[in-house]
Amino acid sequence: MDKRPIGVFDSGLGGLTAVRQLRRLLPGEDIVYFGDTGRVPYGSRGRSTILQYARQDIRFLLSRDVKFIMAACGTVSSTYPDEEAAQLPVPYAGVVDAAARAAAKVTKNRRLGVIGTAATIRSGSYVARLHKLLPDAEIIARACPLFVPLVENGFVDDGNRVTKLVIEQYLTEVRDAGVDTLILGCTHYPLLKKMIGDFVGEEVRLIDPGKEAAIALASRLTPMGLENGRTQGGTVHYYVSDTPDTFAELETLFLGQYAGGPVQQIAIENC
Amino acid sequence: MDKRPIGVFDSGLGGLTAVRQLRRLLPGEDIVYFGDTGRVPYGSRGRSTILQYARQDIRFLLSRDVKFIMAACGTVSSTYPDEEAAQLPVPYAGVVDAAARAAAKVTKNRRLGVIGTAATIRSGSYVARLHKLLPDAEIIARACPLFVPLVENGFVDDGNRVTKLVIEQYLTEVRDAGVDTLILGCTHYPLLKKMIGDFVGEEVRLIDPGKEAAIALASRLTPMGLENGRTQGGTVHYYVSDTPDTFAELETLFLGQYAGGPVQQIAIENC
Repeated sequence: MDKRPIGVFDSGLGGLTAVRQLRRLLPGEDIVYFGDTGRVPYGSRGRSTILQYARQDIRFLLSRDVKFIMAACGTVSSTYPDEEAAQLPVPYAGVVDAAARAAAKVTKNRRLGVIGTAATIRSGSYVARLHKLLPDAEIIARACPLFVPLVENGFVDDGNRVTKLVIEQYLTEVRDAGVDTLILGCTHYPLLKKMIGDFVGEEVRLIDPGKEAAIALASRLTPMGLENGRTQGGTVHYYVSDTPDTFAELETLFLGQYAGGPVQQIAIENC
Repeated sequence: MDKRPIGVFDSGLGGLTAVRQLRRLLPGEDIVYFGDTGRVPYGSRGRSTILQYARQDIRFLLSRDVKFIMAACGTVSSTYPDEEAAQLPVPYAGVVDAAARAAAKVTKNRRLGVIGTAATIRSGSYVARLHKLLPDAEIIARACPLFVPLVENGFVDDGNRVTKLVIEQYLTEVRDAGVDTLILGCTHYPLLKKMIGDFVGEEVRLIDPGKEAAIALASRLTPMGLENGRTQGGTVHYYVSDTPDTFAELETLFLGQYAGGPVQQIAIENC
């Protein structure tokens, strides 16, 4: 039993889709969320910058005395090295591993697609992980850098003409490759799930890494002796690096009925 | 006569469109450019965050011993207070004043449009400045938050279907208001000038703030005794806060034939 909160971070607010899942699966756990809204997006930046930001984010969560750290960010999960994660004083999980396992489990034709930010695709993280699980799989990976700004600017309504056109430009090749499974490798993308699904076809299984990582975390807590023993009443404390107004605007979009909890601004560059 | 360089900064690389003009107008001047590529974009962030970033950018340029500071960023120009600029040890200019003057000079029907980032439009900077110059003007202002990611992701080719559709969504109201002058209030927007012009109609004069600010700066240097006396051979030194690779990718897009010069990464959060 461990009463400390679970720490979740993301470059911005996309990680709230993972918080939503954690709240559903572990309604008794306290959560501390950090969204680096003053420096979002990470996915278009260079590797060393992403690493520096990720280290600061992790140091901040450790300062909040968390018992587990989840990087609910495809870009960080693809960049932060396993060896460094192994040195942290608490267990750490990104989203890549859980998502790759889920994808490997559901694919039948062993043709898989991965979409993500420029940094995630450049890192090759998903391709490497999938090839370990399914050595003979055919994998097509595609960076979709405009999806994050589209989501953050509210172009998410079903049938939005701009988003539809961008999906077509980014995903035609992926669809035509005949994949039966597609990893939505950035926490923003599940907000476009319906439109992406309509485009690639209903026979393609869409994998939501934030959801899969939340499920994996939930199943690990008790074996690790880290569950807090409550079945309800968990709280969420949100921290951001930009002014909190933008958080309020997007909170409901990402969290739905699970929204709520104090929001506080911190100076992440000092962490 | 003053041999020190001119300092120019922007949230990212959009300000290079102003550097291009300065190089054309003042080929003998040395320029130090800082692009905050590790924290771009500014335009979607809160006021206090933008102010903090702008102060760090200015401190960095002062550390390079510049003789003049130009904020080639619509968002910073709209946010950084005049009173604070007046306390700086060197002259400072944003882009708002020069662009508003140019617009006030060319409008005939006194109906003007302003487009910019969310922060620029929210600040009301252009509307206030234009109303001082033309008290009876009708001004329509519109935030166009997707233009920056579209430009940064290369969706700038003439006739690009996505960009065309976004222009239509953002600018129909502006066009239908019957403006004869439109301020492109963000340094990225001149890269969409052709497509914006095609949409609003050729009778609408498009004002490029970076260009106007460069012209204003060029005309002020000699009266202030700050010109360096050379008519050619000026150098440009580029500094960025992200890894320099992304700079190289976008440099030609913004600078054309004026590209070239060393690029160096700095830790802006320590400034």
